[in-house]
Amino acid sequence: MSRKYDELMTHVEKMQALEMAESLFSWDMETGAPREAAPLTARVMGSLSSQYFDILTSPQVGELICQAKEEELNEVQAAIVRELAKTRDRLCRIPAEEYREYAELIAGAAQVWARAKRENDFASFAPVLTRIIEMSKRIADYSRKEGQSRYDAMLWQYEEGFGQAELDPFFALLRENIVPLLKRVTQEGEPISAAPLHRSFDVEKQRKFNCFLAEYIGFDFGRGVLAESEHPFTDGLHNHDVRITTHYYENMLESAMFSTIHESGHAIYEMNVDDAVTLTPAGGGASCGMHESQSRLMENMIGRSPSFWEPLYPRLQELFGEELAGVSREDFVRMINRAEPSLIRTEADELTYCLHVMIRYEIEKELIDGNLGVSELPQVWNDKYEAYLGIRPANDAEGVLQDIHWAQGSIGYFPSYALGNAFAAQIYHAMGREVDIDGCLRQGNLEPIRGWLKEKIHRFGRVKPAKELLQEATGEDFNPSYYIDYLTGKFRSLYRL
Amino acid sequence: MSRKYDELMTHVEKMQALEMAESLFSWDMETGAPREAAPLTARVMGSLSSQYFDILTSPQVGELICQAKEEELNEVQAAIVRELAKTRDRLCRIPAEEYREYAELIAGAAQVWARAKRENDFASFAPVLTRIIEMSKRIADYSRKEGQSRYDAMLWQYEEGFGQAELDPFFALLRENIVPLLKRVTQEGEPISAAPLHRSFDVEKQRKFNCFLAEYIGFDFGRGVLAESEHPFTDGLHNHDVRITTHYYENMLESAMFSTIHESGHAIYEMNVDDAVTLTPAGGGASCGMHESQSRLMENMIGRSPSFWEPLYPRLQELFGEELAGVSREDFVRMINRAEPSLIRTEADELTYCLHVMIRYEIEKELIDGNLGVSELPQVWNDKYEAYLGIRPANDAEGVLQDIHWAQGSIGYFPSYALGNAFAAQIYHAMGREVDIDGCLRQGNLEPIRGWLKEKIHRFGRVKPAKELLQEATGEDFNPSYYIDYLTGKFRSLYRL
Repeated sequence: MSRKYDELMTHVEKMQALEMAESLFSWDMETGAPREAAPLTARVMGSLSSQYFDILTSPQVGELICQAKEEELNEVQAAIVRELAKTRDRLCRIPAEEYREYAELIAGAAQVWARAKRENDFASFAPVLTRIIEMSKRIADYSRKEGQSRYDAMLWQYEEGFGQAELDPFFALLRENIVPLLKRVTQEGEPISAAPLHRSFDVEKQRKFNCFLAEYIGFDFGRGVLAESEHPFTDGLHNHDVRITTHYYENMLESAMFSTIHESGHAIYEMNVDDAVTLTPAGGGASCGMHESQSRLMENMIGRSPSFWEPLYPRLQELFGEELAGVSREDFVRMINRAEPSLIRTEADELTYCLHVMIRYEIEKELIDGNLGVSELPQVWNDKYEAYLGIRPANDAEGVLQDIHWAQGSIGYFPSYALGNAFAAQIYHAMGREVDIDGCLRQGNLEPIRGWLKEKIHRFGRVKPAKELLQEATGEDFNPSYYIDYLTGKFRSLYRL
Repeated sequence: MSRKYDELMTHVEKMQALEMAESLFSWDMETGAPREAAPLTARVMGSLSSQYFDILTSPQVGELICQAKEEELNEVQAAIVRELAKTRDRLCRIPAEEYREYAELIAGAAQVWARAKRENDFASFAPVLTRIIEMSKRIADYSRKEGQSRYDAMLWQYEEGFGQAELDPFFALLRENIVPLLKRVTQEGEPISAAPLHRSFDVEKQRKFNCFLAEYIGFDFGRGVLAESEHPFTDGLHNHDVRITTHYYENMLESAMFSTIHESGHAIYEMNVDDAVTLTPAGGGASCGMHESQSRLMENMIGRSPSFWEPLYPRLQELFGEELAGVSREDFVRMINRAEPSLIRTEADELTYCLHVMIRYEIEKELIDGNLGVSELPQVWNDKYEAYLGIRPANDAEGVLQDIHWAQGSIGYFPSYALGNAFAAQIYHAMGREVDIDGCLRQGNLEPIRGWLKEKIHRFGRVKPAKELLQEATGEDFNPSYYIDYLTGKFRSLYRL
């Protein structure tokens, strides 16, 4: 007798194919699609998304999920059914027509945003953003649990268990510690000039080095692609097809490099997921924050450490001998770790990064649960940058238009970036008890580091929830003090305070 | 009261989205996908294809087609329903499971073929090809009409109305005229050396010129992409998203150029299709042969004519002054038109091209309706090349493994290439009665040529069947004598016979 679980899987296969197709279309739109295809591509993606919706919300699949839950399932199978049930429950509350309309809106919004950013024209993006916010609110109303605010419902979508009740104190802790630390750094720290990194660096040579760098981190080019896009991102179709992008600037050597390391951190997470969950709802990373922890761990704790550059800096100098003349390895490491208030989140240093996220968190709270209107956004954005970072964007392109997230409908996503950093510090600390991290880096051998991450985090995919995974990998519940300690120790030493 | 036609269109939208997704996956597989993604991508494409199958063959869609036919439909709507009914009828005869299996087989075969070709290892491709042929035969059995052979059913799939009864005399006519003409050319013609075209031509410069060339032909980069792949092809998602590839060889200047012109000919056909049929089953070209006529007309009748190069050759010389030193425009035009027996169909000249197709036609007949086995293919292939062209492939990579078509399940497709050439000559002749083609080319203004083609052929998409379209555009039924006259006149003059 055939099991209901297996029958359920035939539907899962269809849904996964539709999801992969959507993934490929969004990758393609950012990396290669012709400009004028966008409106029709949006229609096509809207249709794929609504076909996914139709299958998942069908009574037949609902019944199979209930029946499969009654069968004897192993851990992986149980996780697949659990994830499926969770998504179905959320979607079932949204009327089909509304879901379709939303999907189509989102599919077209990225191009509108990109043009608005390019032309520094917030007004042209505002109507689309207004619709996105309106629809997101309605959708949150359908799915929010009792006692949850709309914004809480959005936050949980990206990081289960982290609503405002958890995030308000988390950001407060960061604020209490980082703001005074940043003040000391800028006022009393020994200044670090990074001028040499802003010389002219041939993009073709940068491409060569970034390709090498991705492979060095562990990116497997047999199962992945490295391309270029306006805003670097990772698109994991499945563990045998993971795509990342970077963005080259002739006058910012470090920008592409750390984007590449960051996205490679995401990518090896996806690549290391066990084949048992490939092309299933348990196949991606455990959560947005957990995913971000893997990219930030590679980018910051590993990629900006002095040991990492011991074997690598000579290679960089081989390519850019003239441009980096007179820059010692020690100078270089100080430069890539310098902290200074800046306008662009993705270019922000480790110390100020969480303030960028905090600003977005505060704004989203007001946009969703408060009374902030879209037309007021540029002003509020600029005021907050002035208040927290002491600098004011000169235009909206380097202000409120800088991130693609809202155009993608990802409201409530930003806080997971800050959580990711805190997860990363906690994981890095736990790894350090079992692996000689600096020793490995000095020898240019990242295998023990990757091995530990694969064993403790990556291979599980979404089989274990993020909170549980963190607890099991590190031996304790979420504890942001590791992040505070890490930042405090690092920047006091770097700035000789 | 809502019309059944409109209800039918909601299903068509879903099918089109699935078809676009498949198109994008195949484009991606040939141009950028990571190598090891192939098996899982094959599964995903198999699923998309079977979801398409499920919708089209559903009783609901069958009923809606019948009901829509009873409603008052305009010409475009009637064509959409007609095309839908035709495909549904063919698919309904194939058992769903078998269709799915076939789609998956095809999705994975291209990579096996590519590796086999790269490694000159026919044996590794043979089992896949054997399965493709077996399944294709079974599928032809389901769909063939009374009195049709299996191969006829396959031929009709690509070119309705052109079975063996029509093709046997067509190829006979070509054989009677081309074989003796080729003999005279090689034995009595004034020899043409193309040695200068085989010097070393910087690929980056070739890219620049090919990009220019595509745009010159009319390729709209706002609605299309030009990339690189092993075997040049066109993938038209819809009229606002048309993608072509070319392939650069450092020592063959003309190869990429004429691939680019060829694929651009396909592309402007797709781009010029009327918006009324975009994303519908009537949205592509009228037939394979008609599509090929547009690419060959651009490549050969236009792209190899002396007038075409009057404004362009100076530009080519600007880029490759040293490499083309001492090569006059007249020399160059003779070189790109030279005829000589060769092994690779896609590199073949205009005169010998149809012999390459004839060989494949004869082999396919025997493979499908006769008793030829896959293991005998390399031998038979090589023997026929020796017999018709007087040269023998040294290995299978330049023999039986050269074309991707069989790996794509396209058996019965090749003859449409020869028909395309004959259609092209007939269309070119008709256009010449209304447009001063040479005058336009000399002035570097292709607009009147594109305008005529758009008006007479392109805009209709698949609304009119190919035979009818040809008749209306040229004022007469299919008449291959224009092709014979064109080749005879051109090559007698070129070789001063």
